[in-house]
Amino acid sequence: MADLRGPDIQPAFIGIPTFAHAPFALTQEELRSLKPDVAIIGAPVDMGVVNRPGARFGPRAIRQAGYAGSPNDRFYHMGLDVYPMRELKVVDFGDANCPPSSLEQSHEAIRVKVMQALHTGALPIVLGGDHSITLPSATAVAQHHGYGKVGMVHFDAHADTGLSGYGGVLISHANPMRRLLESGAIPGKNFVQIGLRGYWPERELFEWMQNQGMRWHLMSEIETRGFEVVLEQAISEALDGPEVVYLSVDIDVLDPAFAPGTGTPEPGGLTSSQLLGAIRRIVASVELVGADIVEVSPPYDGPGAITAEVANRVGLEIISALAKKAKDASSP
Amino acid sequence: MADLRGPDIQPAFIGIPTFAHAPFALTQEELRSLKPDVAIIGAPVDMGVVNRPGARFGPRAIRQAGYAGSPNDRFYHMGLDVYPMRELKVVDFGDANCPPSSLEQSHEAIRVKVMQALHTGALPIVLGGDHSITLPSATAVAQHHGYGKVGMVHFDAHADTGLSGYGGVLISHANPMRRLLESGAIPGKNFVQIGLRGYWPERELFEWMQNQGMRWHLMSEIETRGFEVVLEQAISEALDGPEVVYLSVDIDVLDPAFAPGTGTPEPGGLTSSQLLGAIRRIVASVELVGADIVEVSPPYDGPGAITAEVANRVGLEIISALAKKAKDASSP
Amino acid sequence: MADLRGPDIQPAFIGIPTFAHAPFALTQEELRSLKPDVAIIGAPVDMGVVNRPGARFGPRAIRQAGYAGSPNDRFYHMGLDVYPMRELKVVDFGDANCPPSSLEQSHEAIRVKVMQALHTGALPIVLGGDHSITLPSATAVAQHHGYGKVGMVHFDAHADTGLSGYGGVLISHANPMRRLLESGAIPGKNFVQIGLRGYWPERELFEWMQNQGMRWHLMSEIETRGFEVVLEQAISEALDGPEVVYLSVDIDVLDPAFAPGTGTPEPGGLTSSQLLGAIRRIVASVELVGADIVEVSPPYDGPGAITAEVANRVGLEIISALAKKAKDASSP
Amino acid sequence: MADLRGPDIQPAFIGIPTFAHAPFALTQEELRSLKPDVAIIGAPVDMGVVNRPGARFGPRAIRQAGYAGSPNDRFYHMGLDVYPMRELKVVDFGDANCPPSSLEQSHEAIRVKVMQALHTGALPIVLGGDHSITLPSATAVAQHHGYGKVGMVHFDAHADTGLSGYGGVLISHANPMRRLLESGAIPGKNFVQIGLRGYWPERELFEWMQNQGMRWHLMSEIETRGFEVVLEQAISEALDGPEVVYLSVDIDVLDPAFAPGTGTPEPGGLTSSQLLGAIRRIVASVELVGADIVEVSPPYDGPGAITAEVANRVGLEIISALAKKAKDASSP
Amino acid sequence: MADLRGPDIQPAFIGIPTFAHAPFALTQEELRSLKPDVAIIGAPVDMGVVNRPGARFGPRAIRQAGYAGSPNDRFYHMGLDVYPMRELKVVDFGDANCPPSSLEQSHEAIRVKVMQALHTGALPIVLGGDHSITLPSATAVAQHHGYGKVGMVHFDAHADTGLSGYGGVLISHANPMRRLLESGAIPGKNFVQIGLRGYWPERELFEWMQNQGMRWHLMSEIETRGFEVVLEQAISEALDGPEVVYLSVDIDVLDPAFAPGTGTPEPGGLTSSQLLGAIRRIVASVELVGADIVEVSPPYDGPGAITAEVANRVGLEIISALAKKAKDASSP
Amino acid sequence: MADLRGPDIQPAFIGIPTFAHAPFALTQEELRSLKPDVAIIGAPVDMGVVNRPGARFGPRAIRQAGYAGSPNDRFYHMGLDVYPMRELKVVDFGDANCPPSSLEQSHEAIRVKVMQALHTGALPIVLGGDHSITLPSATAVAQHHGYGKVGMVHFDAHADTGLSGYGGVLISHANPMRRLLESGAIPGKNFVQIGLRGYWPERELFEWMQNQGMRWHLMSEIETRGFEVVLEQAISEALDGPEVVYLSVDIDVLDPAFAPGTGTPEPGGLTSSQLLGAIRRIVASVELVGADIVEVSPPYDGPGAITAEVANRVGLEIISALAKKAKDASSP
Repeated sequence: MADLRGPDIQPAFIGIPTFAHAPFALTQEELRSLKPDVAIIGAPVDMGVVNRPGARFGPRAIRQAGYAGSPNDRFYHMGLDVYPMRELKVVDFGDANCPPSSLEQSHEAIRVKVMQALHTGALPIVLGGDHSITLPSATAVAQHHGYGKVGMVHFDAHADTGLSGYGGVLISHANPMRRLLESGAIPGKNFVQIGLRGYWPERELFEWMQNQGMRWHLMSEIETRGFEVVLEQAISEALDGPEVVYLSVDIDVLDPAFAPGTGTPEPGGLTSSQLLGAIRRIVASVELVGADIVEVSPPYDGPGAITAEVANRVGLEIISALAKKAKDASSP
Repeated sequence: MADLRGPDIQPAFIGIPTFAHAPFALTQEELRSLKPDVAIIGAPVDMGVVNRPGARFGPRAIRQAGYAGSPNDRFYHMGLDVYPMRELKVVDFGDANCPPSSLEQSHEAIRVKVMQALHTGALPIVLGGDHSITLPSATAVAQHHGYGKVGMVHFDAHADTGLSGYGGVLISHANPMRRLLESGAIPGKNFVQIGLRGYWPERELFEWMQNQGMRWHLMSEIETRGFEVVLEQAISEALDGPEVVYLSVDIDVLDPAFAPGTGTPEPGGLTSSQLLGAIRRIVASVELVGADIVEVSPPYDGPGAITAEVANRVGLEIISALAKKAKDASSP
Repeated sequence: MADLRGPDIQPAFIGIPTFAHAPFALTQEELRSLKPDVAIIGAPVDMGVVNRPGARFGPRAIRQAGYAGSPNDRFYHMGLDVYPMRELKVVDFGDANCPPSSLEQSHEAIRVKVMQALHTGALPIVLGGDHSITLPSATAVAQHHGYGKVGMVHFDAHADTGLSGYGGVLISHANPMRRLLESGAIPGKNFVQIGLRGYWPERELFEWMQNQGMRWHLMSEIETRGFEVVLEQAISEALDGPEVVYLSVDIDVLDPAFAPGTGTPEPGGLTSSQLLGAIRRIVASVELVGADIVEVSPPYDGPGAITAEVANRVGLEIISALAKKAKDASSP
Repeated sequence: MADLRGPDIQPAFIGIPTFAHAPFALTQEELRSLKPDVAIIGAPVDMGVVNRPGARFGPRAIRQAGYAGSPNDRFYHMGLDVYPMRELKVVDFGDANCPPSSLEQSHEAIRVKVMQALHTGALPIVLGGDHSITLPSATAVAQHHGYGKVGMVHFDAHADTGLSGYGGVLISHANPMRRLLESGAIPGKNFVQIGLRGYWPERELFEWMQNQGMRWHLMSEIETRGFEVVLEQAISEALDGPEVVYLSVDIDVLDPAFAPGTGTPEPGGLTSSQLLGAIRRIVASVELVGADIVEVSPPYDGPGAITAEVANRVGLEIISALAKKAKDASSP
Repeated sequence: MADLRGPDIQPAFIGIPTFAHAPFALTQEELRSLKPDVAIIGAPVDMGVVNRPGARFGPRAIRQAGYAGSPNDRFYHMGLDVYPMRELKVVDFGDANCPPSSLEQSHEAIRVKVMQALHTGALPIVLGGDHSITLPSATAVAQHHGYGKVGMVHFDAHADTGLSGYGGVLISHANPMRRLLESGAIPGKNFVQIGLRGYWPERELFEWMQNQGMRWHLMSEIETRGFEVVLEQAISEALDGPEVVYLSVDIDVLDPAFAPGTGTPEPGGLTSSQLLGAIRRIVASVELVGADIVEVSPPYDGPGAITAEVANRVGLEIISALAKKAKDASSP
Repeated sequence: MADLRGPDIQPAFIGIPTFAHAPFALTQEELRSLKPDVAIIGAPVDMGVVNRPGARFGPRAIRQAGYAGSPNDRFYHMGLDVYPMRELKVVDFGDANCPPSSLEQSHEAIRVKVMQALHTGALPIVLGGDHSITLPSATAVAQHHGYGKVGMVHFDAHADTGLSGYGGVLISHANPMRRLLESGAIPGKNFVQIGLRGYWPERELFEWMQNQGMRWHLMSEIETRGFEVVLEQAISEALDGPEVVYLSVDIDVLDPAFAPGTGTPEPGGLTSSQLLGAIRRIVASVELVGADIVEVSPPYDGPGAITAEVANRVGLEIISALAKKAKDASSP
């Protein structure tokens, strides 16, 4: 019982750093043969950032976070009373091959990689990278599950619905949600955004969003009405229309105290506890078909690496909540 | 709409780093010609600190925080539904020339610079620098608006009312409030302090403060009674007597999690969200005539620079709340 | 009044860095001659950590935190209205001599040092070091006050009740509570744990803990029921059985935002304000006979050193709460 | 004499951070009216990096380095016995407007900005930014001084002559020298490279370089033959053909000990002293018409910011050596 | 030619971080099947350090250093004119499983892992970890090649020949060379040490070393006689007796400017250029049968990670020099 | 032999952090009773810096550097073959009490403390603090040994002979040498400066220095003539006139690669090896009566703390060279 003796038991800092010490698959065939429930995919891209770069190192940092060792079948979510890795087969499918000077090629590589995972039956969880990677990732999910049928629950300080970035560039981390809407992958009314604050976007963009049927919840609303109330409404909105849901977590939805290692920090955000709790409730309430965790920039994270740690736990919390559902479903 | 094309549109990291990409004025004449509503003034001083120095680099760091680019007429405060820079003309008036080994000359340079701004009709927002700079800054405001007529709303972990600093020095970051009271610039009963905690000052100093009529609110009071209740009382106290109000925000009123880059951190403070909300309410309730944001020490801030970020937002929040009032006032 | 003039008054960064500028004792005789109420002991050990080391430098960092100078008789806890160092004689008894490659010798040195302090009548507060040091420290307290008679109130993200660490090692920072239970020093039902969360330990360990009569409170319980309610229950549990109480504070009970400088950070923890308030209430309610503050790892703390700061305040808060009791007891 | 009294004398950390406290020009007209000898131009670009980004913040960091205050007419190069800013009019012409997601637009903005400077008669010194910016910068110089007539003296750990970057991208920081050669801006035999080492490029690329007539000097040659000998040869090669010379200094030509803050560090490089001395000699020997200093990445520079400091001095050394020539030329 | 197009070509920050993008083997069978010439083995241990820990993270950091991407058959050592990975099959054999609280088990795991590599015919290069790991690593090599037959060329600031560490502990990073000598694995006269300096060990230990026939070269000798002369002598000493040589490189042989990220830095050491050159010459002159690179402590390395970079290049330089020999041997 | 067993043997990170684990004296009486040969004095002052502050934390950082434990009678300088602490009684006399806002009081406290040490017969070694502290320290030495009789050997990037600092302030870290000259404590011809470089002071100041008879050696001279030759000349100059010598080492004489943690770094400086060797030779050649080591600024030093390390070794090197002389003198 809880005896860490034996040649196969390793502390966290030893061995190949996959996400949560999951087994890895180098090819789609390997992935398929492992019969995955969840596939972790790295999207090491930061060409889309308008301020502080570094998110290309996000996937490695998120994988190396955490302190529990392998094998991971002992990971136990005490709040949910579930062993996530016993309920679900989680496999680390490695990184999409993102050439650092071509956002287009990078996005196509991500889209293909996510699609490969989906074809094996796995639910993809993509580790960014900047938020532009939600465009190829959610596009793949929509291609798989049906254009217009996927909802987007989106935690972020920013709406990411800009018409264009600097220079009129259409693809950056300020635009993915607009591109997804425009392409028809995700209709406007399927968007629910939580945690917006600060000084961007501007009013006319909110008006455009409203015209598209998008829904959003500012931090000021959360402060006034309470997080519980707003979260409940957000969940009911997420269930209003979409058949399945994609969850996109920009780590800057957290207050910079909890996530300093990011490109465009905005004071006044959620706490880690709020975010993790919200993820638990959302995953319990909707049918999740894909997720991403983006905008972790290790060069700005400080020696404690707390942003990578909380991003790691966001991934684990998604998996744990999925596992809880699986466990409950399989119980008589 | 939200298209960042064009030669005049620049990302945040390009160009001269003024506060929030405001236009700058090198001289009082230039400032006056811009018809400023608000003037930003740097007070790069840290000779007054008793522990960790570095606040001399505060003004530069606060100016370089933020991720939105220029021009700043697109900055939109979504919580207040206002474009602050469209409502108000904000100009960066540069730094007071503070010789690093003479606190006296530095203070006089600050006082003169603030007075110059006041004479153009601008409301000064001073970026520290250590808290000693409130002495010259608020003195200038009192000289302009009338000795005894200005109130002081003061966010801080410390009361800053010491008789003297180490060695009997009268001017340090532990004494500005006392000097302002002694000079008559701000009478005791015009002081309202919020966020005090920790182990300084001592009881006899609180007794002296009480004898002067000063009012204050400990963090322990906030924890017991709730921030809303205390804030409401503080606002009514701020309106009890003074005709106009000066707002001094020592960034260490925040818990060190939210503001690690400061000289004398004290655990157990406010969150960023609480502080920004309080500023909005105070500015909405009183007639503000000057403000400062002090004790940001970049060498202690870590790579994420989150202290500079939140200090930047404190400045923007003041301006936004002023803009909201201006907008509401100009609406029919 | 509050005049820091004079040759004996020094700022915080000057002189020998004892805890809170307390006088120091190099030997037990010196300690005894000072008639101590509280003895501070450093336990610079980190061989027990399973992930990020560095806690061996914890005692020095905690001692060097804080910004108030010496002498410390002016330290005034404004929330409790008490001068802690006037009510209690606090002495820094230096470090146990811990050879860096022998956890066994280190533990024995700590046990002996704590015992020496206890024999002078002082209440020991031990500065870790990793959490393994609670084994020798609490053992000494139990030896002094009676096996089975001491309760353990334990703030932590982790239960630290593992059967063994990696390689089957029995002594690590994952096991001290189990060893204390097994040795009979502290019976199972005398344990109250607060703040547990994350993915370790596993369910069977919780079942074992339950069988031993241990009590614990997950963060998820705190989020659901409220901290006040849980804390009240924890205090009543701490009073249920034990005659006296040992308080062990693993700094990772705090959210990583508040304590990044630690070896095994776990997002979703307490705030500094919650922890300090809880300590005040617990010390007020029970009869404290020993304490430790562990798992501060300076290399991971960032330039602001906020983890060392809050650990320093945990120590001061314990002393202040003790002083408050002493003051109240001596008042007519 | 050396009395820093007076309102116009400011320490380094005060005021607008131009390069070496030079006056600035916001437009070409302002620049022209200042009759500049040298124009400093920022090229804040890092989309071209294949590993660690961050060079977009290079121009700001290089400008903020240095500790001497303004006005800069007191800067005195003691080794050359010259007041550089008295001999030459140096103006900071600000940054090219580089949209962070479009390398093409960024390059065009840089090319135009450099051309504007050249048209005023100024010698441009461009502060990168990654090494891709040498393509537009040197192209502008070649457009101004004549295709094929400009030589390139190039300090670097890497040859930067790759056919393409990852994904077949033609424009990255691994290719500028090849693109310049291909376009005819700078013929192969006009290239002299100094400091190459490590594991890239490969042999076939060196063979291609040789076929183009390019000349280069490995660090291993410098170690064997001595820096003095190699430098002398490099200078004679630089004079062999080209009428005028462009100097490109990739800061990673320095050993990482001297320049840790860069994207692709390669151990075994030059010392700062060697580089500064070489620049003095080269500028004295050739007719310089343009220069750049690239690959300073502040997020990787550490708190001491020594990479920004040495890059700043590279710029000052170029200017000082030019000033020395001007002074000598004007002496009877 | 040098075109990085194609799905199999990846930048350095993508994919599983093996040493120099080498293929990896998880088991001895996999390793054997790859017919390795060189096997990279991680030894993530730091229980042996007497001062600053963190070397347990050394293997990961060394593997993640470097900026060239995969596949690694394009790595070209321009100074030696060799493609190392084309001449030699280098395989990353992963980490020995080192329980963080048991130096004994860790050492045995390392010894067995190195032996496994040797049995496949591979030359092991071990990435530390602290210097205690040379004990199991070189012991395995001596077991394989014959006790008494292996020589030790040892770069270090310290002799590492202490009788015992603190507390009388026999196994720490201060003792491996003595233990190897005592066990007979490596006789005294087979030791050649280069780079010793500072204040440890003491004279009597040098006398003991002399009595054992050990040879060493202080930095002061290098400064007086010149590095070339001393190196030549060291090589002839290394050839005097042993049939084969094990090379142990403690990164603290470098001056702290070149290797700040280490546990016991000692100013006044070698430059990176000197060390890399010496390695080239030694490997060319002796028959190498094993090597280690130790004492890289990432938490002390700063954001530029220059210590990990140079340690990575030490490994590559060993491989390149071996490859050069292989290439020369196979040339007609 | 080299067995670190026993209760009195401690690793470096344990116990009160005195310089090199020397015994400490809190009062002059305690110091006198220890019959000191050398007294270490901290001068924690940084009000005199014109750029980056932080040197007030220099004494603590220098004391905590080094990795060898206590007792220090085993420290052995292998290059000089001497046990410094066996030859000389070194005592840590603590810090002068420097109020952080009064440079005048701080200087007087330093002067008195150094004088107290001198009166016990000890040679003072003062740990700064910024370079302004040389004024009180060397003044005390001149008062003790005779005005005009003391020579000054001064390692620095800057001459520190400015007429005044910013604002006309006479006492800053840019002026101590001038003030010493003006007061008559040290005549102009008794100054020898080594390592000057960069852009300050200006030519007229060098002319003034020449008129005073001062001697100096630029880095450019060292690069041209060789360090050995220049050092020999400097020593002969130091012996030309003065009877006894004060040695002032500004750590910025080192290249920033070797000393990043300083306030006014200047690229192109000495290596650590050069500086330590020069100190050995100077101390061997002159009669040393006092020394200081200044301008270590820990906030700018990075996690490796290499600047504090080399400053620590400068102190140890001075003591070792003194010990070598004492040993040689006492040998028959």
